[in-house]
Amino acid sequence: MMKTRADGRDAKTLRPISIETGLQRNPEGSVLYRCGGTTVLCSASVDEGVRDFLRGQGKGWVTAEYAMHPRANPSRQSRDGRRSSGIDGRTQEIQRLIGRALRAAIDPKKLGERTITVDCDVLDADGGTRTASVTGGFIALAMALDGLRKRGLVGPGVLRAPLAAVSVGLLEHVPLLDLCYTEDRDAQVDLNIVATATGDVVEVQGTAEDEPMSRPQLDALVSLGIGAIPTLFDAQKAALAKVGVDIARLLGQA
Amino acid sequence: MMKTRADGRDAKTLRPISIETGLQRNPEGSVLYRCGGTTVLCSASVDEGVRDFLRGQGKGWVTAEYAMHPRANPSRQSRDGRRSSGIDGRTQEIQRLIGRALRAAIDPKKLGERTITVDCDVLDADGGTRTASVTGGFIALAMALDGLRKRGLVGPGVLRAPLAAVSVGLLEHVPLLDLCYTEDRDAQVDLNIVATATGDVVEVQGTAEDEPMSRPQLDALVSLGIGAIPTLFDAQKAALAKVGVDIARLLGQA
Amino acid sequence: MMKTRADGRDAKTLRPISIETGLQRNPEGSVLYRCGGTTVLCSASVDEGVRDFLRGQGKGWVTAEYAMHPRANPSRQSRDGRRSSGIDGRTQEIQRLIGRALRAAIDPKKLGERTITVDCDVLDADGGTRTASVTGGFIALAMALDGLRKRGLVGPGVLRAPLAAVSVGLLEHVPLLDLCYTEDRDAQVDLNIVATATGDVVEVQGTAEDEPMSRPQLDALVSLGIGAIPTLFDAQKAALAKVGVDIARLLGQA
Amino acid sequence: MMKTRADGRDAKTLRPISIETGLQRNPEGSVLYRCGGTTVLCSASVDEGVRDFLRGQGKGWVTAEYAMHPRANPSRQSRDGRRSSGIDGRTQEIQRLIGRALRAAIDPKKLGERTITVDCDVLDADGGTRTASVTGGFIALAMALDGLRKRGLVGPGVLRAPLAAVSVGLLEHVPLLDLCYTEDRDAQVDLNIVATATGDVVEVQGTAEDEPMSRPQLDALVSLGIGAIPTLFDAQKAALAKVGVDIARLLGQA
Amino acid sequence: MMKTRADGRDAKTLRPISIETGLQRNPEGSVLYRCGGTTVLCSASVDEGVRDFLRGQGKGWVTAEYAMHPRANPSRQSRDGRRSSGIDGRTQEIQRLIGRALRAAIDPKKLGERTITVDCDVLDADGGTRTASVTGGFIALAMALDGLRKRGLVGPGVLRAPLAAVSVGLLEHVPLLDLCYTEDRDAQVDLNIVATATGDVVEVQGTAEDEPMSRPQLDALVSLGIGAIPTLFDAQKAALAKVGVDIARLLGQA
Amino acid sequence: MMKTRADGRDAKTLRPISIETGLQRNPEGSVLYRCGGTTVLCSASVDEGVRDFLRGQGKGWVTAEYAMHPRANPSRQSRDGRRSSGIDGRTQEIQRLIGRALRAAIDPKKLGERTITVDCDVLDADGGTRTASVTGGFIALAMALDGLRKRGLVGPGVLRAPLAAVSVGLLEHVPLLDLCYTEDRDAQVDLNIVATATGDVVEVQGTAEDEPMSRPQLDALVSLGIGAIPTLFDAQKAALAKVGVDIARLLGQA
Repeated sequence: MMKTRADGRDAKTLRPISIETGLQRNPEGSVLYRCGGTTVLCSASVDEGVRDFLRGQGKGWVTAEYAMHPRANPSRQSRDGRRSSGIDGRTQEIQRLIGRALRAAIDPKKLGERTITVDCDVLDADGGTRTASVTGGFIALAMALDGLRKRGLVGPGVLRAPLAAVSVGLLEHVPLLDLCYTEDRDAQVDLNIVATATGDVVEVQGTAEDEPMSRPQLDALVSLGIGAIPTLFDAQKAALAKVGVDIARLLGQA
Repeated sequence: MMKTRADGRDAKTLRPISIETGLQRNPEGSVLYRCGGTTVLCSASVDEGVRDFLRGQGKGWVTAEYAMHPRANPSRQSRDGRRSSGIDGRTQEIQRLIGRALRAAIDPKKLGERTITVDCDVLDADGGTRTASVTGGFIALAMALDGLRKRGLVGPGVLRAPLAAVSVGLLEHVPLLDLCYTEDRDAQVDLNIVATATGDVVEVQGTAEDEPMSRPQLDALVSLGIGAIPTLFDAQKAALAKVGVDIARLLGQA
Repeated sequence: MMKTRADGRDAKTLRPISIETGLQRNPEGSVLYRCGGTTVLCSASVDEGVRDFLRGQGKGWVTAEYAMHPRANPSRQSRDGRRSSGIDGRTQEIQRLIGRALRAAIDPKKLGERTITVDCDVLDADGGTRTASVTGGFIALAMALDGLRKRGLVGPGVLRAPLAAVSVGLLEHVPLLDLCYTEDRDAQVDLNIVATATGDVVEVQGTAEDEPMSRPQLDALVSLGIGAIPTLFDAQKAALAKVGVDIARLLGQA
Repeated sequence: MMKTRADGRDAKTLRPISIETGLQRNPEGSVLYRCGGTTVLCSASVDEGVRDFLRGQGKGWVTAEYAMHPRANPSRQSRDGRRSSGIDGRTQEIQRLIGRALRAAIDPKKLGERTITVDCDVLDADGGTRTASVTGGFIALAMALDGLRKRGLVGPGVLRAPLAAVSVGLLEHVPLLDLCYTEDRDAQVDLNIVATATGDVVEVQGTAEDEPMSRPQLDALVSLGIGAIPTLFDAQKAALAKVGVDIARLLGQA
Repeated sequence: MMKTRADGRDAKTLRPISIETGLQRNPEGSVLYRCGGTTVLCSASVDEGVRDFLRGQGKGWVTAEYAMHPRANPSRQSRDGRRSSGIDGRTQEIQRLIGRALRAAIDPKKLGERTITVDCDVLDADGGTRTASVTGGFIALAMALDGLRKRGLVGPGVLRAPLAAVSVGLLEHVPLLDLCYTEDRDAQVDLNIVATATGDVVEVQGTAEDEPMSRPQLDALVSLGIGAIPTLFDAQKAALAKVGVDIARLLGQA
Repeated sequence: MMKTRADGRDAKTLRPISIETGLQRNPEGSVLYRCGGTTVLCSASVDEGVRDFLRGQGKGWVTAEYAMHPRANPSRQSRDGRRSSGIDGRTQEIQRLIGRALRAAIDPKKLGERTITVDCDVLDADGGTRTASVTGGFIALAMALDGLRKRGLVGPGVLRAPLAAVSVGLLEHVPLLDLCYTEDRDAQVDLNIVATATGDVVEVQGTAEDEPMSRPQLDALVSLGIGAIPTLFDAQKAALAKVGVDIARLLGQA
């Protein structure tokens, strides 16, 4: 059994979520996504055309870029991408995960030969920045898709599955949902899960930094993560509804 | 004589300004500065110590970094600083200007051996991003200075002169204040001016892209720019007052 | 039900493994690891001292570098790390995984303030290069640890848990073990698992490129992967025994 | 009132100028420009065609590159452009200024779709390297234009306005013309002005490093700078006449 | 007169050579070449087409890349090409030499518009890595050429001259053949020679690090080097014969 | 037998040499060296101290940097060192040669722990730029050594051997001295030789681009090159004498 967490939550409760759209005026989808002390500015940009390796196949592409604001953390770090040796490994790993996850949400044939780039700029980092980027990035993506739909450029079914992401971890052998930075730092196991609103798994990444996890522990973590997706989806759906985006219509269910 | 401008302003009117503080929680000063269609997120970070070339002189340093969000413009551009050949020339030129301007606002001896870095991230670009960075950056800087003052680390006079910046230009031979993107693009002369609240000039940069300006034209542009600084200063002062920062106290006048 | 695979294997059979040690004479551990058409040259190098962030804590560090030979694939690619924009994202993601996995195998306190770097150079790539790097890299690591042990520099228990890695995937809804390149390319789900000889999970990374996986599918894949670890461990143990390395002794069990 | 300056000049006197043409044999214009202790090798190269963003508009382009010789200063510095992180900010800022200034000298339509690159290599640096680059660079540019004229490729009017540049500054509140390095280092205000032979302003850049300048101070500096341009122009014209280049003909006035 | 060398050889004896083909399965030619303590993995890759500067002339191209494995030496070095400032000078100098040498072996017209890239990865370095790369690289190149011949893509005479390379040096004024690392480090003169099986010189590079060499010393070194080529050629020919490559046929002599 | 060469020389004649000192005022040695159509600006800079790998051994170091002016050739090339992927291979190879050659001229113990950097900037390139850099660079080096001598910082013998360099080549089977660009481009063999005034060889680099050279051809080329060194040395000595540098004194022979 576990005492209350630092911020008063119990083990299976998400941090408070706030979603603000339209901070930026240029992107086709713009979302300021906050969960607890983590804030990510997600913007979706639509460009006609795809990269060379996809050209001529009639398929679209979704990709992501992730960047840490130099002062997203308690002390200032050098600006992402301005170090001499290219983008750092952690950034690359994260933005590849976000891109893969968001691609799984759409039907590339129905998107057609266009590219949607989802920029995820972390303004405040307190754990879970990659899962917040996926969850917030999905909202920006849906806004962009709905814009295309309203202009008659894509049809129903372009959205294949709404999805969200959350982190879980083992701390003192207790499975915890939605780790903040200090919990993440101390966790024996850290696992990120991306899943659809209906509980199917798009991506799972778990690392036992310290001590391997038993199979039952892995299963418990996966269950805890999948179980939180519907709550995240409700928040996404509500934010999208406020700006007139109906997910059901994008899915071809309405 | 000049017809009304695209957005209905007359030649000598600033675009509407909006200033929101505290969007980020980590920086010592955080400001979302908007003027018309331009939005800049300014954050001031305090670090103890200074760069090597200043060490041991008992003086502080203020520097700035400027970055364009990839979707600050109508079409997405590659992410600042991730191109293969380093930071581009325009970015470097702008961030050097912002840094020089903000350094002129403070008394380095009274700051002591610490560095304040002002990050200016342009979220939406519609002309005047460098002057908005100076004007918004000053607010973030003042918040950071006031934090140091409240902790007893700096005394009155650490702020030497409040300052703001504005662009002016010649379009069809008419001097215009605070150009938006399309005006800036078409202007015969583009001039940026950084000045103190009392009208002294900190930096002036004017370029005749097309046709050289006569001396009277230059003088008229400088007058138009300097004349707008008090209005900008009033907006800065009001925003700072809302978060309990009294400029007079930082100046040592209260 | 599934027809026989391209190379005649059934769904739950590993590709043939061959392990040759000592190809290089300088590294403290040198292994040429082949599984099917994939060949990885793994070399473990011991350096006294650790990186700055670990100094003074009495702990060691294990890290990995992964590089693709330019002609590891059917057509030549540009040489890893000589592109203008730094190491590519896939390489970074993979070498971070290998490093994390191998760190989990050792007790950093018992290693002491020294660094073991495991270089994994893929000479032929036919799927499963990252799991082959972990499995082969473990052998090189154990050789290096045993060298330290023989010189009296580390004691029993420096090895915490022998581990190996394998890929699994869903192809036409059938879970397959140890995918070759063409299977990997066509798989609906691709999952890599790193686990200890006793079946505890060190890292799990699963991606549904195409269609999300149901929870039972995820569970089946994890089981298939964990089930193959003992066979890999037997091969590792045999190869190590040939060069006089007794895993039990490194574990402190002999 | 001001005592005599270090080199015996009074406040309003330029340093001695020497202009040598033809040091390099390949460039269409080659000038070794010295003013006091500053020496710049300026070379103008003509290439047919323009960059992508200008193609098809029938307009030419003038651009500049600025580089500091590693031993242009009292102690050797690392070679420009060979540092790991690209060209440094000061270099970029300066070469952008030179390019803008020289573009203002020509009529792009009359130049036609060709590019003139003016390389400015500082061989000795004693203050005023950017203004020397503009003044010397103009001579190289005029030589290149005259070569095109003699080959019948451009007509009269391709040169719109001869121009030169000079630095001015405030030192102990006295406006000084054409600062050497130590004066520049100690100046309260440093202002560079590019102007036509007839006194119209092409570019003005003034920075108050230390203490803002009053409006009358700014005006006095601008007047001092503009007043020196005719002397510079006489030197340019004389050097060009020696190699048979008649500016009046390029201007279409002869 | 000279005492026996560290490894028991006399002054005019090569180190033992071992040649293994087929370690990699993808390259058109794959050779693991060892001489003494130096091991180089050479792989030849054929690509249709040539670089821009050769296109349309009906000629082929041979080029080389040289890379040092991070643990080819007694202590680990950072991985080739991952330093921030590009490929280092020594690497570039060496791979340019290897490429030039191997190009001299073939008739570019008979190769036709295709490119053969010979990758030379040094796995263990004990002196003579560049000459081993040429000698081993030639074998890989011949394997690739023979593959093209068997597919009817190139005819006899595509190989113009078989060649090999060796280092010689002056140590305590005695000419030595095939220096190992410690000899190379201490040598007064270090000279590399690439020559054909019939004794014509393709490349000679000699450096007197310490004390200039007299003309008779230079002549003696060249003679010693050229004299060793036939032995190297015999080893090359035998290795090629084992995999069914007949050099005479490639030369058009059979 | 050979007809007269393009510029009227016979096969064994050097191009006209001109040597101007003092173009730059800051370097300890400054030489503008011309031979035929090739012009190199050589500057020698003295810094106290040596690189890490030499520290504490009481030895000095001589190094070189070579750079091609963007307009040293008939068409403008991109500026050396500003390409994205670091310094190019040819540049690196050349500057390593120059540095090695000039190091051979001095006695590192007598130089003491200081570094002399010889910058070689090619202003016009018409063949032989690397040998001109060595020959001209030697003059700049001797000027710098003499300055140290006059300040009492180094004694006689700091110069071990005056040296110069020249290119030779085989064109239509005729050995030619001091190739210009077109001859170099068409030569079957290109060989550079660095030798002392007394005919000992410091460096020899010969490449048969097209057709291997026979041993007698190699010997003839070496003889032709060595034979030209005294003429080059006379020119060096005369130029040095004009600025009061007596080589005999640096050698300890006067």
